[in-house]
Amino acid sequence: MQALTLRTEVQRRDRERVAEITTATDMFHPPEVAVAVELVDDRLTKGKASDYQFLFVDEGDATLGYAIYGFNSMTKSSWDLYWIAVDPECHGTGVGRLLLGEVESRSRTGGCTHLWVETAGRENYTRTRAFYVSMGYTIAGELEDFYAPGDSKIVFVKAL
Amino acid sequence: MQALTLRTEVQRRDRERVAEITTATDMFHPPEVAVAVELVDDRLTKGKASDYQFLFVDEGDATLGYAIYGFNSMTKSSWDLYWIAVDPECHGTGVGRLLLGEVESRSRTGGCTHLWVETAGRENYTRTRAFYVSMGYTIAGELEDFYAPGDSKIVFVKAL
Repeated sequence: MQALTLRTEVQRRDRERVAEITTATDMFHPPEVAVAVELVDDRLTKGKASDYQFLFVDEGDATLGYAIYGFNSMTKSSWDLYWIAVDPECHGTGVGRLLLGEVESRSRTGGCTHLWVETAGRENYTRTRAFYVSMGYTIAGELEDFYAPGDSKIVFVKAL
Repeated sequence: MQALTLRTEVQRRDRERVAEITTATDMFHPPEVAVAVELVDDRLTKGKASDYQFLFVDEGDATLGYAIYGFNSMTKSSWDLYWIAVDPECHGTGVGRLLLGEVESRSRTGGCTHLWVETAGRENYTRTRAFYVSMGYTIAGELEDFYAPGDSKIVFVKAL
């Protein structure tokens, strides 16, 4: 295993890799994968004027995971983690923790007091929810029937 | 008072009027007004491919209020009311009720099972929250410290 490196600038080839990783996790529906790619496009088009900040974990030329986050301009100091996904072949190796820890640290530097994460309440998200709890997040609210009737949205928050 | 008419197509001049009405309500910070105008721009640029649907209430040539809403593509059948604002000179005349009732009816036709509204918990939003309750909305969650430390977000929902 080579050293892991963090990268913030977005490249054209990330479009494909973000779609690959997001699909490979088997946690997202095709319309959700499309939204993740739209965020890459937004950043490629607008550059730093985009509301979306990216963080990639690379091992040499291979991208292992990514996070998309940013300041919520409707708020004073809330930031959102829009997306985090890690190649399933690297699950359990700490790539997710590395990404989320870096997102927290960079958000805090940017003035963030509260980092918000939205995830699903359904069963195949049990590991995801446990991950956020282990990283110090608490449940701020549960919106029943949000993703679909019977499929709730869980909102996590961490005060930074 | 002339008859009120509903309009769904967005015109260039709506840019200015949306900013005027939104500012005049005295309920939104300048960055929030800027977001409302961005949604108008998104719709003007993308046309019907935009995720944002508009509804205006006009009295002759004068626009009295508007709503912005749309299907949340991350969900099966949830729609969001992104924005609703009425010229303060018309408050209490039923323009808000007309707008929200039409949004509900059009969302339902589009397949919406749950319409979601996010608003603030702070004191100057008391009338706003009472409006949603009177229209049959219930509080699905309250996210403390969301807009600012001490300033929560209230999420309302109505099953259609």
